Amino acid sequence: MTTPARPRLALVPGEPAGVGPELCVRLAQQAHAAELLAYADPDTLQAAARALGLPLRLREPGQPCGPGELAIRPVPQARPVRFGEPDPANAAAVIEALTLGAAACLHGECQGLVTGPVHKASINAGGIPYSGTTELLAAQAGADVVMMLANPSLRVALATTHLPLREVPDAITAAGLERVLRVLHAALVRDFGLATPRIAVLGLNPHAGEGGHLGREEIEVITPCLERLRAEGLRLEGPLPADTAFLPAKLAGFDAVLAMYHDQGLPVLKHAGFEQAVNITLGLPYPRVAVDHGTALDLAGSGRADPSSLLAAVDLCSRLAARRLPA
Amino acid sequence: MTTPARPRLALVPGEPAGVGPELCVRLAQQAHAAELLAYADPDTLQAAARALGLPLRLREPGQPCGPGELAIRPVPQARPVRFGEPDPANAAAVIEALTLGAAACLHGECQGLVTGPVHKASINAGGIPYSGTTELLAAQAGADVVMMLANPSLRVALATTHLPLREVPDAITAAGLERVLRVLHAALVRDFGLATPRIAVLGLNPHAGEGGHLGREEIEVITPCLERLRAEGLRLEGPLPADTAFLPAKLAGFDAVLAMYHDQGLPVLKHAGFEQAVNITLGLPYPRVAVDHGTALDLAGSGRADPSSLLAAVDLCSRLAARRLPA
Repeated sequence: MTTPARPRLALVPGEPAGVGPELCVRLAQQAHAAELLAYADPDTLQAAARALGLPLRLREPGQPCGPGELAIRPVPQARPVRFGEPDPANAAAVIEALTLGAAACLHGECQGLVTGPVHKASINAGGIPYSGTTELLAAQAGADVVMMLANPSLRVALATTHLPLREVPDAITAAGLERVLRVLHAALVRDFGLATPRIAVLGLNPHAGEGGHLGREEIEVITPCLERLRAEGLRLEGPLPADTAFLPAKLAGFDAVLAMYHDQGLPVLKHAGFEQAVNITLGLPYPRVAVDHGTALDLAGSGRADPSSLLAAVDLCSRLAARRLPA
Repeated sequence: MTTPARPRLALVPGEPAGVGPELCVRLAQQAHAAELLAYADPDTLQAAARALGLPLRLREPGQPCGPGELAIRPVPQARPVRFGEPDPANAAAVIEALTLGAAACLHGECQGLVTGPVHKASINAGGIPYSGTTELLAAQAGADVVMMLANPSLRVALATTHLPLREVPDAITAAGLERVLRVLHAALVRDFGLATPRIAVLGLNPHAGEGGHLGREEIEVITPCLERLRAEGLRLEGPLPADTAFLPAKLAGFDAVLAMYHDQGLPVLKHAGFEQAVNITLGLPYPRVAVDHGTALDLAGSGRADPSSLLAAVDLCSRLAARRLPA
């Protein structure tokens, strides 16, 4: 019997002025199921450690780390961090850390990517076109991806993500929905170890269109798509009315819910367990898990930020990465 | 000290072939804070009592009722009920019972209306144009109404109700939103006894539009409307992102949430407490509370239907009606 190999995760704190760096310092105080390799500015991590009064010794990649130690590949910022005050001059370093961490996953140096919260407005103010980390990673890898949020009891994937509500109905196309369902199904099989995952697919309209009385997208787009994929063996139920699909007794029959848009799926997930909720990017060549909270600039440096989501992200990403390692 | 007057509620079972009649029979087995007066077909109620093996003695309006007794104003159906099989020939009686119960409230014979689930398709098949009981009652009373769902821990009102999703953005107008907020505010003051109710108003778009990047309705319609009403003293927070507005810690600061559309607000409410959820029509001259479940045709006559929602409806309507009685 051999000891199973331990995956290595690239850890990217995100916005330096937010709570990401101090949450990474907290991670470094304890052991994890995976080896962590931070892609970050060393001075920022040390400043966060000092602010929290916690020990932090930064080590070379590959060196063993005990409590209070963290391996790092330095990604220097243009300017020193000031917690609570994002500096657009540091936007390039934020993007570089993400890109280098993701590249390490693509090249096999790391087996998964865990990311903290970024500050979109500051990145854009730094002159960098950026719509989201999920989109950035998808473009870098050339992959079709799906965003899925999860807490310990519920997984919700999104057919569309950050779109104005009035653009949602036309964005739900047969081809797009089929692509999303294939990515979701494949990820549930490969990464979550579900042989035949059961997916609840919500309707677009209230009451899933009520037989066409409240919209026809279910009849014209969603149902034909589900029928095609069911013929291939996918276990898809729907289109289901969103308000009753989330009843606990109903949810018990599914491994994941596919919501058609952001505010149809995420309020329940966050209401039911925000602290441990994480954001998973499905469809990349490697597992990527992010925290499901923002930069919390008002808490940065105070030591009051809750590390539950980042801990849950490391824990889940460790399991997903371990599943992909050679036995 | 005088004994407070006891309100009388009109009780309308809804679809005869559904679980409404048997839930009314269950109600009759126990005492309530209000006197109940059923508007229903006597034979249907007796058939439901027999199916459940429960006693039922129907009495004249105004007669005192003990356990197993229920006062009734008969509204005869065209055909005998067959549980589980809605008969469009009985649609007229369903509508008549609703109309008579509501009229009793308008004329002061009753002080509140409690309704069971109706079967919209069967009413339409009976040749009666009907889009919903809320709409029917609003038209009868000539009132502007707002639909609010509530469970013991959460109240969610809707700015729009049963519309195809693609019609929602244009249905959110400054005038309409102002009307809805005035009705909601007034009902929270008058019926729920909140001197200065705090209302969380959701945005239309994900992240409440994220400063205009994800839609402009928040900037152009919602925010100006909220500012006008705040200047009058209404306590309105928003527009808030829907996914974080429902975090339990956030909800604790509000008496009600106004969602912009059906699937933005109802999934959380039903997930968090479906059994005791009720549907309240705000803005009528009398309180009206309905069950928040359907006809459950598959359960009708089996005795397995859960009476929690109808009990909660009677309990809430009793309290709302008592508050309006002269002291």
